Amino acid sequence: MSEIRDLQARILRFRDERDWAQFHTPKDLAMSLNIEAAELLELYLWKGSEEADVGRVREELADVLYAALLLAAHYQIDVHSAVVDKLALNARKYPVETSRGSNKKGSEPG
Amino acid sequence: MSEIRDLQARILRFRDERDWAQFHTPKDLAMSLNIEAAELLELYLWKGSEEADVGRVREELADVLYAALLLAAHYQIDVHSAVVDKLALNARKYPVETSRGSNKKGSEPG
Amino acid sequence: MSEIRDLQARILRFRDERDWAQFHTPKDLAMSLNIEAAELLELYLWKGSEEADVGRVREELADVLYAALLLAAHYQIDVHSAVVDKLALNARKYPVETSRGSNKKGSEPG
Amino acid sequence: MSEIRDLQARILRFRDERDWAQFHTPKDLAMSLNIEAAELLELYLWKGSEEADVGRVREELADVLYAALLLAAHYQIDVHSAVVDKLALNARKYPVETSRGSNKKGSEPG
Repeated sequence: MSEIRDLQARILRFRDERDWAQFHTPKDLAMSLNIEAAELLELYLWKGSEEADVGRVREELADVLYAALLLAAHYQIDVHSAVVDKLALNARKYPVETSRGSNKKGSEPG
Repeated sequence: MSEIRDLQARILRFRDERDWAQFHTPKDLAMSLNIEAAELLELYLWKGSEEADVGRVREELADVLYAALLLAAHYQIDVHSAVVDKLALNARKYPVETSRGSNKKGSEPG
Repeated sequence: MSEIRDLQARILRFRDERDWAQFHTPKDLAMSLNIEAAELLELYLWKGSEEADVGRVREELADVLYAALLLAAHYQIDVHSAVVDKLALNARKYPVETSRGSNKKGSEPG
Repeated sequence: MSEIRDLQARILRFRDERDWAQFHTPKDLAMSLNIEAAELLELYLWKGSEEADVGRVREELADVLYAALLLAAHYQIDVHSAVVDKLALNARKYPVETSRGSNKKGSEPG
């Protein structure tokens, strides 16, 4: 089994042992992802970029991935190919020649 | 190379071809993760949970993972073990006997 | 009419002319508030704190307040007294003597 | 003094008594607004839209407004006119005739 599917299998087992699937609508999972992302963001609040506690970043990042992988599993989205396809799309949208060293594009894709 | 490290290598290559590392402080990456998570959330706004466009969910989820995997790479956090460790922590925090079928715990862990 | 109630009356009129109340469940309004807050955050992404476009900050801040004031109206929450009461609560939680010049408390209240 | 300026004066006094202006860059205030918005969102997680605790909604909404009004004060943005102007802009963007009863426009403006 692939590494990502292994994580998803562990997460689904954790979830199903607790009978939590009933709460996990995709809309609530997307909300949960936002809430976990905000908890991660809080580790950087009112301080310099390198002052966040790395141990806590690791934990909050795990919570973000927990929600993201559950949402992917709900739709049977293959995570690896989704990221590879998006990189190809972004490579066309942000050609190396015109994008080099520029932050003009906002959050899309970074 | 593991599947997740393969994705990270692809993402870092995409990033470095564009010389974007200079903008990617961990604080800005955490902001980016929140912004991408909100774009995913918007796909569920004003509608029922199963009415989101799955193709667009796949794309926004890829953007979320792009930001999350870049942030993990910044700290050299091993994503697989971070999730496995967090599941073990949460298993102690939410024992099966007392957590079954209950949504009391809010977002932690879901 | 108070200034805040005047804004709420204008927002509700705008909303009702379009018959949008049917979509505005409190859960969706809270989602909308997060999405608008993220659009504001995006104005600061990959750049220094004072480099955001002030005209766009003004617009995105208006969208945030639109969602917040709609949500308050849904519950008939008086916004002025809600903020005054929270400041009193926070004043007890963060006494001047122990809080001066410290960012220890994270996001609560800032 | 107007009602909104009265709130801003109270918030600035609370802030300055604690000497917190030094942490309140606009970028951090925008982050704080997102974090508070996510705490509000968490009150709706894994449950029906009308099941959130109204007392807690009132408190989290106050935290959202605290951050929004501080950010407006930083730029000396007049909140009332910012919202009135945005409603006028949105009225042109979403004419009553074509927008009635439709949720097509996503989060903009609701």
